[in-house]
Amino acid sequence: MPLILVTNDDGISSTGIKMLARALTSVGEVYVVAPETEQSAVSHALTLHRPLRPHEVDTNTFCVNGTPTDCVIIAVNKLLPRRPDIVISGINHGGNLGDDITYSGTVAAAMEGMILGIPSMAVSLVTDYTDNGDFHKSESRFVAAAEYAAVLSKKILAKGLPKDTLLNINVPDTEKINGVKITKQGKLAYDGAIRELSDPRGRTCYWIGGGIPQWEPGEKTDLDAVRNGYISITPVHLDLTNYEAMKYIEEKWEK
Amino acid sequence: MPLILVTNDDGISSTGIKMLARALTSVGEVYVVAPETEQSAVSHALTLHRPLRPHEVDTNTFCVNGTPTDCVIIAVNKLLPRRPDIVISGINHGGNLGDDITYSGTVAAAMEGMILGIPSMAVSLVTDYTDNGDFHKSESRFVAAAEYAAVLSKKILAKGLPKDTLLNINVPDTEKINGVKITKQGKLAYDGAIRELSDPRGRTCYWIGGGIPQWEPGEKTDLDAVRNGYISITPVHLDLTNYEAMKYIEEKWEK
Repeated sequence: MPLILVTNDDGISSTGIKMLARALTSVGEVYVVAPETEQSAVSHALTLHRPLRPHEVDTNTFCVNGTPTDCVIIAVNKLLPRRPDIVISGINHGGNLGDDITYSGTVAAAMEGMILGIPSMAVSLVTDYTDNGDFHKSESRFVAAAEYAAVLSKKILAKGLPKDTLLNINVPDTEKINGVKITKQGKLAYDGAIRELSDPRGRTCYWIGGGIPQWEPGEKTDLDAVRNGYISITPVHLDLTNYEAMKYIEEKWEK
Repeated sequence: MPLILVTNDDGISSTGIKMLARALTSVGEVYVVAPETEQSAVSHALTLHRPLRPHEVDTNTFCVNGTPTDCVIIAVNKLLPRRPDIVISGINHGGNLGDDITYSGTVAAAMEGMILGIPSMAVSLVTDYTDNGDFHKSESRFVAAAEYAAVLSKKILAKGLPKDTLLNINVPDTEKINGVKITKQGKLAYDGAIRELSDPRGRTCYWIGGGIPQWEPGEKTDLDAVRNGYISITPVHLDLTNYEAMKYIEEKWEK
């Protein structure tokens, strides 16, 4: 029976991880090891400056006072009875699309699984980038995303993944899903919305967030798929080298 | 006169950032905006759950109670008199090589500069991966790395960088530097060293770190260059799509 490690960045109490763990019981033996508090936008951060304490909150269910990456490292090395066959992170509350994946704790947990040599995927329910104001975040939509994750995990367990590759899955928050598309990462930037405020002692503070995502249009991108009602599957690796730029620099200005 | 934003992940008090800021005064007007405490391995994390307070500790020098990415966002949007011409992150105390760059706060700060459309680079002094036990971390080695960063920043200001590309620079900690190589990101993994300990109440805790890096040998990699006494320049972008894997999945198992 496959051993499945489930984690996330929204924390152990979130709806998304509960629905995911429940759906995966049809696929294998499920262990949940997740942050005890929300860790959104925590990226691939590792906690090196203090010890971490796992707390068993239920059968095969642990919370850890750390990041999603910490959870994967401790789960694989210390908490699970053996090496898991797959790592699944999610269901994230909100999309992980375009350049945003570099901030995502959800995707980072799957990166860590992949670095450890385990087939891994991140699954997100896209409630925040749709145009139609149809922001349900309802349990039934999480259930649908979790059921798709279960189907896909069976495929991965049977057929494997290409070397050094994780899957970043985004499921649109709509009643009717049109199908599945293999996509590339889109391009986005925020218009830098920062709220300025005063602390109780009158000193100026800044609160990051609330920016409006600005998308570069692009065919076959993750956003394009989700906007059109398709589940997006982006194969992701960690080689950040810009090979084109290597040539450019060597030829144009290295001498 | 060029406006230069300097940041890091070791914190405002580290030797590396001081030497970097000093060397760059020969290139332009320098602003330092850096975390008030060490933020190593914090990756591209953003602080969204609380406000951030910059504190002006010296002329054009601010510390922020946040991550390196927070520092870049607040500096560019709120603290600097105008948009900077270049963002330089470092000098990191230790290398940022191979897959480790996905954990690095130093590299993430340069990523954020790049996302904001500003030419950016990260500079690290590699004191931890050399074979010869020659771990100086002496001020003179930081000065040498900072002087090279100043030379390179002039080149970037004059000639620009390819679109959506930052430079990840690693300088070997040796007396005699053999030259400069344009490199690709190497592959590495850790042997998962986790220390197990008890907290004062007798509960088991784990402390991540201290693993020995295991390198896959590879030509033209960042590590290869540094090991041979060369400064490594890796052009880095944020498109994590594995295009090869897109084809593989479409052909082999999507149907």
